[in-house]
Amino acid sequence: MTRYLLLAEGFSADAHYGKTMRGVLRYRREDVAAILDSTRATGDTEDGVPVVQTLEQAMQHEPDTALVGVATQGGRFPPAWIELLRQCIEHGLDIENGLHVFLADDPEVAALAAEHGVELRDLRKPPHDLSTATGANMSVPATIVLTVGSDCAIGKMTVALELDREARARGVRSQFVPTGQTGIAIAGWGIAVDAVVADFIAGAAERLVVEGAARGGELLWVEGQGSLVNPVYSGVTLGLFHGSAPHLLVLCHESGRDEIEGCGGGPHPIPSLRDLVELHERLALPARPAKVVAVALNTRRLDEHDARAAVAAAEAETGLPADDPVRFGAGRLVDAVLAGKG
Amino acid sequence: MTRYLLLAEGFSADAHYGKTMRGVLRYRREDVAAILDSTRATGDTEDGVPVVQTLEQAMQHEPDTALVGVATQGGRFPPAWIELLRQCIEHGLDIENGLHVFLADDPEVAALAAEHGVELRDLRKPPHDLSTATGANMSVPATIVLTVGSDCAIGKMTVALELDREARARGVRSQFVPTGQTGIAIAGWGIAVDAVVADFIAGAAERLVVEGAARGGELLWVEGQGSLVNPVYSGVTLGLFHGSAPHLLVLCHESGRDEIEGCGGGPHPIPSLRDLVELHERLALPARPAKVVAVALNTRRLDEHDARAAVAAAEAETGLPADDPVRFGAGRLVDAVLAGKG
Repeated sequence: MTRYLLLAEGFSADAHYGKTMRGVLRYRREDVAAILDSTRATGDTEDGVPVVQTLEQAMQHEPDTALVGVATQGGRFPPAWIELLRQCIEHGLDIENGLHVFLADDPEVAALAAEHGVELRDLRKPPHDLSTATGANMSVPATIVLTVGSDCAIGKMTVALELDREARARGVRSQFVPTGQTGIAIAGWGIAVDAVVADFIAGAAERLVVEGAARGGELLWVEGQGSLVNPVYSGVTLGLFHGSAPHLLVLCHESGRDEIEGCGGGPHPIPSLRDLVELHERLALPARPAKVVAVALNTRRLDEHDARAAVAAAEAETGLPADDPVRFGAGRLVDAVLAGKG
Repeated sequence: MTRYLLLAEGFSADAHYGKTMRGVLRYRREDVAAILDSTRATGDTEDGVPVVQTLEQAMQHEPDTALVGVATQGGRFPPAWIELLRQCIEHGLDIENGLHVFLADDPEVAALAAEHGVELRDLRKPPHDLSTATGANMSVPATIVLTVGSDCAIGKMTVALELDREARARGVRSQFVPTGQTGIAIAGWGIAVDAVVADFIAGAAERLVVEGAARGGELLWVEGQGSLVNPVYSGVTLGLFHGSAPHLLVLCHESGRDEIEGCGGGPHPIPSLRDLVELHERLALPARPAKVVAVALNTRRLDEHDARAAVAAAEAETGLPADDPVRFGAGRLVDAVLAGKG
């Protein structure tokens, strides 16, 4: 069983940049030995997991794998990190890396890893044999659900994981389908569709739903990426949408977010929930018309009262079941999906 | 001045697979010395260019560069081609290659090229320093026109080239912006956006419009890729759309084509022109609302009478100026764009 050291240097407090760390902490906490972040205070913990300031301190918790827990825009390594990774290798740690830059491509790092007998796993490295979508996605023997969103970093992965967990608890043969580095770190399989050659996005997505069904899933929860209305990543979003060929969509939104975040050339206003529902259904192909069956709200910016009001407002606006599955439980949304599944 | 030998083995008669060859023949014919295709008959010509059956015959026409003129779905080399490319190198020809597989990555081919002092140019190889879109696309000092389509292989590149040519003839500071291997082979610059990492599609598109303006273009004709309704390539299409931030769109369609071609899992019906206009305008971002100002029809399947009828029907249906710029001239469509430019 893997024991992770999360390399979260300087980023462990940041919502966007700590995504992989937070995902692994939430969904694989039992596998996390410690978090390394020299900018945090001695004795800090993150949900009970020790936060340490140096690698030597970290080693006392006996990790066997260092996970690069930073997802930066564009995903490149800050130069100072290479030194830290070298030290991890010298301490005998395997490395799992979620960035666009691959450790295996760095001859020095690769040689050092070979010398120390440790493994470098580049989570974002696509399979070498990807190709264009074939149409096999239309024959997958499962109901396919895709989480789509009003922006990035609002909870599409989290919603897919929470709903998958609830469905499994109900005895459904349910599978989470990872499409990003964090999902891959959590689930142990998958393809980072944002890192594949553009022509192959749909082909990669297709391969994932085929594999999800092969792994026994009759209900597949495909982790969405980007947003149709985020101009930086919308291409990834649509390629994943058409390649995964979903029957059902769960629309995710962060209450209180009115503009696309972290995106130059704006402001880029976020459309209304109703417009987003219509847009997504409009883009589904005639061969696989997809319906939005539920709205998943991320209400972390709100207190409980306002959160419940936001959920009610979303239902009133869209006519669809809505909830915050992290805060209030995944039941209502899973009910909606199972009803939509028919 | 480059003298091309087009390597079109077995493909020179096929509309889809001869795209690069046909593009270079149409827009750079003066630079084409010969076409190599052993399946064609002795003495054949293609629009006056000699078609030869062997490399020895080809060398009599004194090419200096072999162009791989085949664009296959997924873009991989048939194994038999590597032998042909070796022979080209041994005859002292530089190679320009438009496929997803890069010659420079093949150690044998690269070594052979070095030995013979010839250059390998992989047209689809992205710049090494691509990143995500920054928003600079919104500040480009030019009017940006994007050709969008109802499918692949209907003429988006051709329309952009024809309209650019007409605009230049009228004294407009006009620039064609290449986004695919064929456009790059024709124009001598550009990025194949279908070959970049998915996260960077919009960033690559942004870089292209910035460069188009830097090259003096006040009116930029961005070559569209794929189609929003072709499930294999739609991700590339949307990333290019949002990354190039067009003000105006020219909707391209092939009269008589009712279904997406070459795409499994179908049939995938093509929506009406009116629905396509609405879909594209719907997907433009609030920060850069784009309007479809004209419809470009590819009427090659029709005789002249039916072609004119199709053009009239398209105008009646959409309320927009329509024409076949290849068959009837680019004037009407350029008028529409210049009127839309304001």
